[in-house]
Amino acid sequence: MTDNPEELNRLRKIQQGDVRTASRLIRGIEDNLPDAKTAIRRIFSHTGRAHVVGFTGAPGAGKSTLVDAMITVFRRQAKTVGVLAVDPTSPFTGGAILGDRVRMQSHAEDPGVFVRSLATRGALGGLSKAVGDAVHVMDAMGKEMIMIETVGAGQQEVDIINHSHTVIVVLIPGMGDEIQAIKAGVMEIADIFVINKADREGAGRLENELIAMLNMVSQFPGDWRPPIIRIGNLADAEAFRESVEELAVSVNDHYQRLVETGLLGDRLRRKAIMEIHEALHDAILAPVLTDLAQSGEMDRIVERILNKESDPYTIADEIARKYPTRPKKSEKE
Amino acid sequence: MTDNPEELNRLRKIQQGDVRTASRLIRGIEDNLPDAKTAIRRIFSHTGRAHVVGFTGAPGAGKSTLVDAMITVFRRQAKTVGVLAVDPTSPFTGGAILGDRVRMQSHAEDPGVFVRSLATRGALGGLSKAVGDAVHVMDAMGKEMIMIETVGAGQQEVDIINHSHTVIVVLIPGMGDEIQAIKAGVMEIADIFVINKADREGAGRLENELIAMLNMVSQFPGDWRPPIIRIGNLADAEAFRESVEELAVSVNDHYQRLVETGLLGDRLRRKAIMEIHEALHDAILAPVLTDLAQSGEMDRIVERILNKESDPYTIADEIARKYPTRPKKSEKE
Repeated sequence: MTDNPEELNRLRKIQQGDVRTASRLIRGIEDNLPDAKTAIRRIFSHTGRAHVVGFTGAPGAGKSTLVDAMITVFRRQAKTVGVLAVDPTSPFTGGAILGDRVRMQSHAEDPGVFVRSLATRGALGGLSKAVGDAVHVMDAMGKEMIMIETVGAGQQEVDIINHSHTVIVVLIPGMGDEIQAIKAGVMEIADIFVINKADREGAGRLENELIAMLNMVSQFPGDWRPPIIRIGNLADAEAFRESVEELAVSVNDHYQRLVETGLLGDRLRRKAIMEIHEALHDAILAPVLTDLAQSGEMDRIVERILNKESDPYTIADEIARKYPTRPKKSEKE
Repeated sequence: MTDNPEELNRLRKIQQGDVRTASRLIRGIEDNLPDAKTAIRRIFSHTGRAHVVGFTGAPGAGKSTLVDAMITVFRRQAKTVGVLAVDPTSPFTGGAILGDRVRMQSHAEDPGVFVRSLATRGALGGLSKAVGDAVHVMDAMGKEMIMIETVGAGQQEVDIINHSHTVIVVLIPGMGDEIQAIKAGVMEIADIFVINKADREGAGRLENELIAMLNMVSQFPGDWRPPIIRIGNLADAEAFRESVEELAVSVNDHYQRLVETGLLGDRLRRKAIMEIHEALHDAILAPVLTDLAQSGEMDRIVERILNKESDPYTIADEIARKYPTRPKKSEKE
């Protein structure tokens, strides 16, 4: 850890909530710059105060509108807010097709709200790591409530959402003949269910399916049975506001429960393991890949595979022998 | 490569299309058994003849019904078919909540059709690797058309779908105010667009949005402009059958284009790089993680992070020093 005055200045600015410094750092995280990594090391010991809330659900489930409404509620409670909208990105163009940067305009003038979108360059595990680091930045900025929004399906989105303390799964009625998110594998990590657009046909059936599913669980960790919150139509402003406030109460209740039962420690542990795994990928595997690419060996390997001279497993074993990862016993604690 | 007679027997049985042997191997792939890896090495040189077609789209878009209908069309063309339905799974239970094993019953008696679901134990990158290997098994079995079906959102699903030669993105009208899959980052990898449930309100608008999007592309690789196929309501059997046949023609046309333009080589190269990356994760990073877990060092590391004594990056660098991956220069080609 260096005591470089520029570094200290950057840390201080982020702690003061300076938007430009924080934005530049988050951009550096996205681009996987070494300088950003240095900053995160520095920042890390100043994190851990925020309540991180994850929103996941199928595209079109109305997560953005909901997050926007939650900002309003939290701001009314005088809490500072950070929002991280995650755009899964094609690995081919390396950029988000549809940025979310234009939305949440209503809070653009409020210095208590910091909204950022995050895309990635397609590295395996890269997006989840970037999300974790961007959350650290917002945490160090002093944002009390941090909301992560992602499209919910697949392992990667589960990884992303695991950076949260409270996970909200957003569903809408009538998307299919089944509870759509079940297939997405996020059901079991839900702390709160939201039935969005609850005025639509099928809302009652969806709620009943959720209740039936929850009834099959014999015991919930920390005795927290995930509540089901119906969010009304945006057009009926009063009902919409009330249901969003109900959700905010649930979010707070859940955090209290995590603290009271000691489950918060488990979540933090889970998050730490994930972050170590991701950092190890960067520290151990990435240099090997870089070396293979730069030496031209990767091209030769690909040709051998295309010519069916060898297979990926055999080649990976060959490479592992060239880049041995045997621990130096003397250095082990 | 051993000449173990049992191994040779297994390879022979798979090449003969033996369902029990193939199913057991795919189960072994899912469970990441060393024995399965050995079999894939053996099988690898007998693969490369199948046309692999990937279907992706949001949950509820009707992919399963469409794949089912495509089986019928391909069978009518006397092509053998393999289907791989991918269930993204929670990392916490390690099992698929909702198996697809009961579906596609209509082809259960047809020996020319082999259908398997795939879940995973949640390892980073594990699902995509398993998909790649299961495709190799079906390819070695002699299946001429292999269809992969996955829920489309996020990097992992893009990885999965990249095991295909032809990628079909399935959309349905009226899911939101935007083309829902754009956010999922799969738009750019689409070779064919399907508007499913095209009798629904909003189908015309969705098609116009797609056309507008495609019109923005100045040049398509191999001059292949992704066609947009409308699939009608299942209830109108005649129209449904015709539109599915139109899709099958498009799938075939796309493969011809890949072959004629040499783009097929690019796809195979992309797939090989992905497979090497995944195999390297297993060969280089996984042993380090196992060692850390077994020695109890991972627990100590997590405590240091939770106590803010260190950060994941610094710890990863420490570990990388203990498990050096410097190439032995003498062994390098």
